[in-house]
Amino acid sequence: MSTTQTNKIETIKATATKINEVDFDNLSFGAVFTDHLLECDFINGEWQQPVIKPYAPLLLDPSAKVFHYGQAIFEGMKAYKDTNNDIWLFRPDENYKRFNSSAVRMAMPEVPEFVFIEGLKQLLKLDEAWVKNGNESTMYIRPFMIATGAGVVANPSEDYKFMILLSPAKAYYSGEVKVLIAEHFSRAANGGIGAAKAAGNYAGQFYPTSLANKEGFQQVIWTDDATHTKLEEAGTMNVFFRINDTLLTAPVSERILDGITRKSLIDMAEKEGINVEVRPVLVSELVEASQKGTLKEIFGAGTAAVVNPIAGYSYKEVYYELPKIENSFASLLKDKLTSLQNKLTEDTFGWTVKV
Amino acid sequence: MSTTQTNKIETIKATATKINEVDFDNLSFGAVFTDHLLECDFINGEWQQPVIKPYAPLLLDPSAKVFHYGQAIFEGMKAYKDTNNDIWLFRPDENYKRFNSSAVRMAMPEVPEFVFIEGLKQLLKLDEAWVKNGNESTMYIRPFMIATGAGVVANPSEDYKFMILLSPAKAYYSGEVKVLIAEHFSRAANGGIGAAKAAGNYAGQFYPTSLANKEGFQQVIWTDDATHTKLEEAGTMNVFFRINDTLLTAPVSERILDGITRKSLIDMAEKEGINVEVRPVLVSELVEASQKGTLKEIFGAGTAAVVNPIAGYSYKEVYYELPKIENSFASLLKDKLTSLQNKLTEDTFGWTVKV
Ligand SMILES: Cc1ncc(COP(=O)(O)O)c(C=O)c1O
Ligand SMILES: Cc1ncc(COP(=O)(O)O)c(C=O)c1O
Repeated sequence: MSTTQTNKIETIKATATKINEVDFDNLSFGAVFTDHLLECDFINGEWQQPVIKPYAPLLLDPSAKVFHYGQAIFEGMKAYKDTNNDIWLFRPDENYKRFNSSAVRMAMPEVPEFVFIEGLKQLLKLDEAWVKNGNESTMYIRPFMIATGAGVVANPSEDYKFMILLSPAKAYYSGEVKVLIAEHFSRAANGGIGAAKAAGNYAGQFYPTSLANKEGFQQVIWTDDATHTKLEEAGTMNVFFRINDTLLTAPVSERILDGITRKSLIDMAEKEGINVEVRPVLVSELVEASQKGTLKEIFGAGTAAVVNPIAGYSYKEVYYELPKIENSFASLLKDKLTSLQNKLTEDTFGWTVKV
Repeated sequence: MSTTQTNKIETIKATATKINEVDFDNLSFGAVFTDHLLECDFINGEWQQPVIKPYAPLLLDPSAKVFHYGQAIFEGMKAYKDTNNDIWLFRPDENYKRFNSSAVRMAMPEVPEFVFIEGLKQLLKLDEAWVKNGNESTMYIRPFMIATGAGVVANPSEDYKFMILLSPAKAYYSGEVKVLIAEHFSRAANGGIGAAKAAGNYAGQFYPTSLANKEGFQQVIWTDDATHTKLEEAGTMNVFFRINDTLLTAPVSERILDGITRKSLIDMAEKEGINVEVRPVLVSELVEASQKGTLKEIFGAGTAAVVNPIAGYSYKEVYYELPKIENSFASLLKDKLTSLQNKLTEDTFGWTVKV
């Protein structure tokens, strides 16, 4: 007898809302959560009834595998409210697919589409008062899955918990972003888990990033771990380089996250008639272009950071400042992307999905 | 005002023991825990009062950083009871040092020695009835630390929880162990976190290991991610190779865990007059030695697995069976090591520490 009902979402409403305690003009990223969350457990080889319920702490055994062996994956998405107060998602199918690819790589069960997509829509509808409109206000969405099975033996968990949290947010980075190009540390191995949005990929970056912070750099641009000659991506952003009027970005690989912002920007840039080259970008090319004066821009691209211009980079103790230019590709593309996401312009790509 | 008292351990005793429910002859590894655990929180930049208390579930915010960014490290140790019913630890200072090196690499706070070592001793004393004597019975010890701070932004947590769990255990692997040599997947990057006992290093191995399991191999021997030509280590064991009468093992590096069993076996083997070479071991050397008939043994070495003989290995679809030999180095070293750990022979190295 199975009690599984993954084609129906149960809802338990909070008795009161916390919304009045929140200062929406001064949100720090990822710190505030809405009244509800979605939860769905995987037990005995089956997904159980998904439930939307009041945001509350979790009870887990201290030997739960997530604590010991790092079986944990996540996604990062956003919801936008248009001027009619309709709520929109941006390419949610891409996040859903990537989430399940991450699950496979981490030996975790794939989440049913109904739980992920329909669950998210119902959660957003319930907490819709938390989604504000305006270009700078978005709802950051955090689907994630953790291994809840007990036992300190290094093999995959039997049980898992999938959840979706909602966190109203403004911009991810504030102020100027200067980056350090990695010469020793690295983020991902060949044949490793770099292409998965796995929890373990992030903690490993904190220490090298803290060393960079001490030298005045907000982020690290990772290079390939074998030779440190190829530019790969930043901690939570893919990276674009503009040399003369050509936009360059590294191809995705098993070391690099296949960013949804990245691929959207490539399509948008091409539509704008910009010449885009997706190919390995060498550190030496970048330095040479800086020296020649042909390096015009570097920017990061990601759901949280949107399009983030880089002010300068350091490599082998030398700091290279980027020129301040008018009509940058970064501002053009950021404007096109956020206008489309916020339904201020027509979505000719078919990327926006109504909740 | 600080309420921190890390020089005193508070004890809250369980009202009843679960020991009578446990079948000590049929323990599956890491599945049963004793009545108590040790807990110590790091809050506002300070370690709080360590507490020994009844084993119970943890309450954590769903946005706790351990779930999203994988800030989690652990150790694996054992306690042994001798024929006088005294309890002994094996080189606990080495685990303590390695734990704090892992902490630094994962941007987590270092744990005070008193909390780790004295906390463990007091916990073992309280649950001493759970420590059984006899060569095959040990108490597996799991110190670990997780990031408990809330917030879905990819930076280090402010708050952490350190815990020690005790799990009575027999052998880790039962039956024959055949291994697959990794040709595509890998465990660690140059400049990565492979040398840390970080949770994120383990989940990434589950999927490639499950593929190996399907082909009849219990474990994978990882190779360097850049060239896949050098033999590194297994999932939870360092690896030794015996070619003729020489024992070979890879040097530790930032990709390989500095195993305490490994370094103890090197010292013990040298004392036995065995020629030990610590140097990169190539896959090609291994295959060549197999073909020539000079490859005598492969064995894994780790706290959980102790000394684990490998029956054969597969590389590029060819399976190489190891010969069945008398007087193997594996059985000699296993016997020397476990006799010393269980205080059946004199500890001339000074490695055992009384609880
Ligand atoms: C490592 C990494 N690279 C790139 C990105 C950008 O991906 P996306 O545009 O899908 O958000 C992210 C996260 O958002 C990331 O975590
Ligand atoms: C990856 C890895 N290598 C090797 C070992 C062996 O180390 P030790 O002998 O200190 O237990 C372990 C764990 O025990 C491990 O997790």
